[in-house]
Amino acid sequence: MKLYDCQVAPNPRRVRMFLAEKGITMETIEVDILGGENLQPAFLAINSRGLLPVLELDDGTRFDEVMAITRYFEDIQPEPPLLGRTALEKAIITNRQRKMEFDGMIAGSEVFRNQHEGFAERSIPGASGEINPAIPALIERGTKTLQRFFASLEDYLQEGPYIAGKAFSMVDITAVCAVDFAAWVKINIPPENTRSLAWYEQVSSRASAKA
Amino acid sequence: MKLYDCQVAPNPRRVRMFLAEKGITMETIEVDILGGENLQPAFLAINSRGLLPVLELDDGTRFDEVMAITRYFEDIQPEPPLLGRTALEKAIITNRQRKMEFDGMIAGSEVFRNQHEGFAERSIPGASGEINPAIPALIERGTKTLQRFFASLEDYLQEGPYIAGKAFSMVDITAVCAVDFAAWVKINIPPENTRSLAWYEQVSSRASAKA
Repeated sequence: MKLYDCQVAPNPRRVRMFLAEKGITMETIEVDILGGENLQPAFLAINSRGLLPVLELDDGTRFDEVMAITRYFEDIQPEPPLLGRTALEKAIITNRQRKMEFDGMIAGSEVFRNQHEGFAERSIPGASGEINPAIPALIERGTKTLQRFFASLEDYLQEGPYIAGKAFSMVDITAVCAVDFAAWVKINIPPENTRSLAWYEQVSSRASAKA
Repeated sequence: MKLYDCQVAPNPRRVRMFLAEKGITMETIEVDILGGENLQPAFLAINSRGLLPVLELDDGTRFDEVMAITRYFEDIQPEPPLLGRTALEKAIITNRQRKMEFDGMIAGSEVFRNQHEGFAERSIPGASGEINPAIPALIERGTKTLQRFFASLEDYLQEGPYIAGKAFSMVDITAVCAVDFAAWVKINIPPENTRSLAWYEQVSSRASAKA
């Protein structure tokens, strides 16, 4: 089994954090997204979409979606549970994970990709087969969505100490990676969101956050 | 338990199809998205985001993400399995479901919302608290992404007869709803994609497709 990885990229980090929390180690192969290595023939032969991370099983089966990779590891090694134990927990985690992903991770990506000159012709992640010019209006839309992300993060933490309640979960992983990604474009947790700031401090200090 | 629903909308349809395949019936409450009822105070009191569908449990817990709702029902009633039985099946279904959702359902939404005059100030689904003007460039981007959706649908069906292999699954539900949604904006399965056309015919003839 091996993981095609990219140290600086936020989605591969979500998988590395998940694996670190599970105590799973494996071979990783670094691919340089910023330099465009993911769009070169060698990597496109691995994943024609050019997306990272990619988990490759020993039989050659590959997964290029974070939530498919984490689903797989949760099933083969349930402890510690990061996607929930009961039907209710699993549904809460799935629901909140998606909010953190869409409003946080994807909105951050919209802001970043549509303003960074290195992505002027690749506003969609990975290889689409065509030029996808940056859409400046997505910078404003993504910026507004990130404010909504921060608001719902603060709201979810009313129960706490973690975003889905008493236990650390995949929701916290996605959210902390989204917060750090938003900081690339200088958008940060508002200073009045004290619960979020305390949560961020605590989650960032976990060993897995450095994975 | 009850479901806030909208007959014409593609995401509520995904849940209705899933429930019909499981043989689960429940109270539904119709909310008119096209007329903007989901953005009126009565519904915002149910879901402040204005999103549909919403599943409400008897204790008042609510889920407003299709994949959280389906996760919940898969756990409380595993038969027939629609999200996979084994770790490998679950990962394959999760991976492909997301491709069909992002490239099909969400791309279709980008094309539809950014060209339909009724959504001129709500290019983001639900209530965001601000005006989100339509972004015309997303029509072209979404149209290109839909072509990629059709290509990967045809590719996945090489194994068949269903998108994730031998068994009908949530991937087929998301994909058929995305195909029908794309037809709203007059974008259809290319005539040369014969596997997709045969699959579409077969899946559309299931009783659940009319749910």
